[in-house]
Amino acid sequence: MRTTKQLVDAVVNGEPRSIARAITLVENGSLEAQEISSRLFPHLGKAHVIGITGPSGAGKSTLVEKLVRKYRERSRTVGVVAVDPTSPFSGGAFLGDRIRMQDLSTDTGVFIRSMATRHNPGGLAKATKDTVRILDASGKDIVIVETVGAGQSEVEIMKIAQTIVVVLAPGLGDEIQAIKAGMMEIGDIFVINKADRENANKAATDIQSMLELSSEKHQWKPAIVKTIALTGEGTIQLSEKIDEHRKYLEKGEGKIRQQRILEAELMEAIRQKAAERIIQELKKSGRFSMLISRILRKELDPLTAAEKVLGERMNKG
Amino acid sequence: MRTTKQLVDAVVNGEPRSIARAITLVENGSLEAQEISSRLFPHLGKAHVIGITGPSGAGKSTLVEKLVRKYRERSRTVGVVAVDPTSPFSGGAFLGDRIRMQDLSTDTGVFIRSMATRHNPGGLAKATKDTVRILDASGKDIVIVETVGAGQSEVEIMKIAQTIVVVLAPGLGDEIQAIKAGMMEIGDIFVINKADRENANKAATDIQSMLELSSEKHQWKPAIVKTIALTGEGTIQLSEKIDEHRKYLEKGEGKIRQQRILEAELMEAIRQKAAERIIQELKKSGRFSMLISRILRKELDPLTAAEKVLGERMNKG
Repeated sequence: MRTTKQLVDAVVNGEPRSIARAITLVENGSLEAQEISSRLFPHLGKAHVIGITGPSGAGKSTLVEKLVRKYRERSRTVGVVAVDPTSPFSGGAFLGDRIRMQDLSTDTGVFIRSMATRHNPGGLAKATKDTVRILDASGKDIVIVETVGAGQSEVEIMKIAQTIVVVLAPGLGDEIQAIKAGMMEIGDIFVINKADRENANKAATDIQSMLELSSEKHQWKPAIVKTIALTGEGTIQLSEKIDEHRKYLEKGEGKIRQQRILEAELMEAIRQKAAERIIQELKKSGRFSMLISRILRKELDPLTAAEKVLGERMNKG
Repeated sequence: MRTTKQLVDAVVNGEPRSIARAITLVENGSLEAQEISSRLFPHLGKAHVIGITGPSGAGKSTLVEKLVRKYRERSRTVGVVAVDPTSPFSGGAFLGDRIRMQDLSTDTGVFIRSMATRHNPGGLAKATKDTVRILDASGKDIVIVETVGAGQSEVEIMKIAQTIVVVLAPGLGDEIQAIKAGMMEIGDIFVINKADRENANKAATDIQSMLELSSEKHQWKPAIVKTIALTGEGTIQLSEKIDEHRKYLEKGEGKIRQQRILEAELMEAIRQKAAERIIQELKKSGRFSMLISRILRKELDPLTAAEKVLGERMNKG
């Protein structure tokens, strides 16, 4: 049997079956997951991670497909992680789309993986992040994450992308309204896809004015690109904008972002590990069920109970 | 100036302006939020909390409106919390819907609040739970929470509902596929709305077979109800099913669910409070930025760093 170290070495060497195996292990939240993450950590930070998000029907998958082809023409290797359950990458959507993309799945410079949201909705953000990192460590030049961007966990996922592309299409009124919330603040590039449709210009103007209202004070001015993903129109401009954003990041902002990501991650790790330990101790000593009984009798509320327990611990230390 | 205690007393007396004020305070994550929650805690558990979830376009809001009217006919007081940003309750959707519901907003037996997802996506689940509790403590007989059920935080929200109604409509194929993940397991009652549409029977059969595949082993057999919310058809049957589920819960299962909710909440409170304290200490002592430097140099990964820090703390105690 292979050790986790051997598996990680094979991942770092870009061996596709080991990459797939490592992803399955982290996706299932297996015992090896943490060791895999820790061992991969020193190999991270080489790939450019691009997040593609937007409502269903905006044409994200077709756009991703065209981007992948553009990168392959320039001999860049690409990893794709699709979180959208209706994405053709994850076996949803139309047969035609899947057939069109079939050649990509036999290209050894491309690794496509869809995240099975049904198994583990709670751990989706974590599993996706880990998958992006496995693909980064495996030596892919570009890693693209595609999500519908509807929920909080998907906004979370986007935080690991260096360049975030928000894809919209004219005439998706309600859905645009629905995603506006989290998405407008995080987009580095906005794509109006299906730009041959009526109202494409209006959509661009709407986004422009929303961006002007936004309070972000970065030096990067979010760009708006019009595309027709089906014909490939505008995808060169999009990939150029992505490169431009990458160069901008390399001038300094990238390090700040990276540090912010790692700070958030350390805090999250402390949160998770601290709770695990404390709750385990409380359960072992019978204290946890005592607290629950008092809470059920409404003598105590959960937040006050937590403060009590932690106050005692801190005074001990 | 009113103290938080006075505010909470007014909430418990059902005073609408105080209810609104308390919700705003918890929604903004203000300093008083925790005191409000703690003080309200002993007054909880009287309302029947009904979660209504399902994809946009299924007709949830119209159904909620009809349910509210049914409860009002029986002189029950009702609170509604709408998390769907396109819900007419939150000012989205069509003017016609809003006008139709206007009379409800002048009925003192009804309190309607929409959660502003844009302000605080991360705290949405928490703010919604707190709002449901404020309405419970204020003496409302019924509290209805409406969400689109797309993201993880919305599945979280549903966990505080005693009876969960999943609303679907024929012909929403893709979206049904998208929500299937989290929703099939949590639904106590499934509504096929727009039951006059073609394929309504097929939708019911589909759900029936999905339910039969499901591994849940509760005594409650999830019910399927067909409605036409626009005309009100089937809403009596739905409210009867909800009552039936309530009675089922009162026979024992309700207590088990309640305990599970409070256990999860105590764990979450410990998680939050423990991390707050530890991170604060680490930042104060400069240890946090030391760790980040090491992580940036890739000498350490975040999970290992967290374990190190916590291991040291535990040994001290």
